[in-house]
Amino acid sequence: MQRYFIEATQLQNDIVTIIGDDAHHISNVMRMKPEAEIICTVPGSSTVRCVLTNISSETVTATVVEYVENTNELPISITIASGLPKGDKLELIVQKGTELGASGFLPFAAARSIVKLDDKKAGKKAERWQKIAKEAAEQSYRHIVPTVEQPVAFQQLLNIIPQFDACIVAYEESAKTGETAQLVQTFQSLKEGTRLLVVFGPEGGLSEKEVDQLTAKGAKLCGLGPRILRTETAPFYVLAAASYHFELMG
Amino acid sequence: MQRYFIEATQLQNDIVTIIGDDAHHISNVMRMKPEAEIICTVPGSSTVRCVLTNISSETVTATVVEYVENTNELPISITIASGLPKGDKLELIVQKGTELGASGFLPFAAARSIVKLDDKKAGKKAERWQKIAKEAAEQSYRHIVPTVEQPVAFQQLLNIIPQFDACIVAYEESAKTGETAQLVQTFQSLKEGTRLLVVFGPEGGLSEKEVDQLTAKGAKLCGLGPRILRTETAPFYVLAAASYHFELMG
Repeated sequence: MQRYFIEATQLQNDIVTIIGDDAHHISNVMRMKPEAEIICTVPGSSTVRCVLTNISSETVTATVVEYVENTNELPISITIASGLPKGDKLELIVQKGTELGASGFLPFAAARSIVKLDDKKAGKKAERWQKIAKEAAEQSYRHIVPTVEQPVAFQQLLNIIPQFDACIVAYEESAKTGETAQLVQTFQSLKEGTRLLVVFGPEGGLSEKEVDQLTAKGAKLCGLGPRILRTETAPFYVLAAASYHFELMG
Repeated sequence: MQRYFIEATQLQNDIVTIIGDDAHHISNVMRMKPEAEIICTVPGSSTVRCVLTNISSETVTATVVEYVENTNELPISITIASGLPKGDKLELIVQKGTELGASGFLPFAAARSIVKLDDKKAGKKAERWQKIAKEAAEQSYRHIVPTVEQPVAFQQLLNIIPQFDACIVAYEESAKTGETAQLVQTFQSLKEGTRLLVVFGPEGGLSEKEVDQLTAKGAKLCGLGPRILRTETAPFYVLAAASYHFELMG
């Protein structure tokens, strides 16, 4: 069933009102007819199954049939902090990371990031990433849309670490030396509702200085198995492992 | 350190001889000089660290310094059977799946596969996929290059199931109904050195008939958490979960 995110104000007295792009999508792209059903989610609040009553390309109205339980979110909240990678890799990280359950994305300018974004470019990029997150969240039946921040300086990344319950750094050298315990220990230490920040380097990895600064703030270095993962693959590993640990082994 | 796969015949009496594209890569792309070190792997056999002695764009020779232990392979062998997806998604599956430790890839023509490949096209595609697997295997420090088969008919997929110790089917309906135990149970039942086949549908999923035929052959249906994953994302989940289970928790 097609899914759409709506604002709280669009759901009143069990009537949903959809406007803008989503109305266009329902009427002109999907060509849905009255009595067709859709799912609408107010992020972080209700999810409703509803039946379409009136359809035009400007406004679609629908009547709620059922309030659906929200059980599709990972028990812990995981924010992916990615050292700005090359090309459109961050788009892949945001799309697949959203499917795999990330709560948010925080790109940062790492010492070895080759891409430099000025404020104007960064704003445009962040807008595009946010759109990708919304579409992937709808497609994967998420109940929230992960937030994608504008790229921050490394110092700002250090400053926000204390806002999280735990912080781990995916570190290639840990993988090479066979470190295997940290990710399991971290997951075991985190209770439902806690917040985890996971930091990934750009293509060249984090610099030694960056690693030292992160660990000085309490971050733990963490291996992700013996194979060397690309910068865009490592977040998928952490998110899938979190789902396996908290949702399947449970 | 740069890594190359070589044939068994290229390693004799602790001398490695590299020819062709890899010799060109060492001499002209990386511009390495004598005394530089590289790692060479005979797939499924030895991995050696060696020091370059002679370099030309046609032939490079190197002397073995150390035999390196092969510990980078997943304890169980996992073959990814993907219902042929659209566009270049299979390239992404092969690249990232190789980084994440897959042993092989077997594309198959599913009832809902939109792409149809004739033999000539299929051969060309398989060649390209195999090249992607080789590059990803080098980059991620694998000790084998996963095999990528030419796409097979669904009936052939059914026929090879008995060659594996276990077969699971990633099934969207299992995810929707909250099935969470099968993947964990399957991993727990598999000992080191066993072979697992994992079947994924194309974009529209597997048909009911296909699912029935697979389960009739002993395949188990399996959920991958509550979020609906795209056809190219689901294999990453299974491989990362396998690494978490066998390599980090192990």
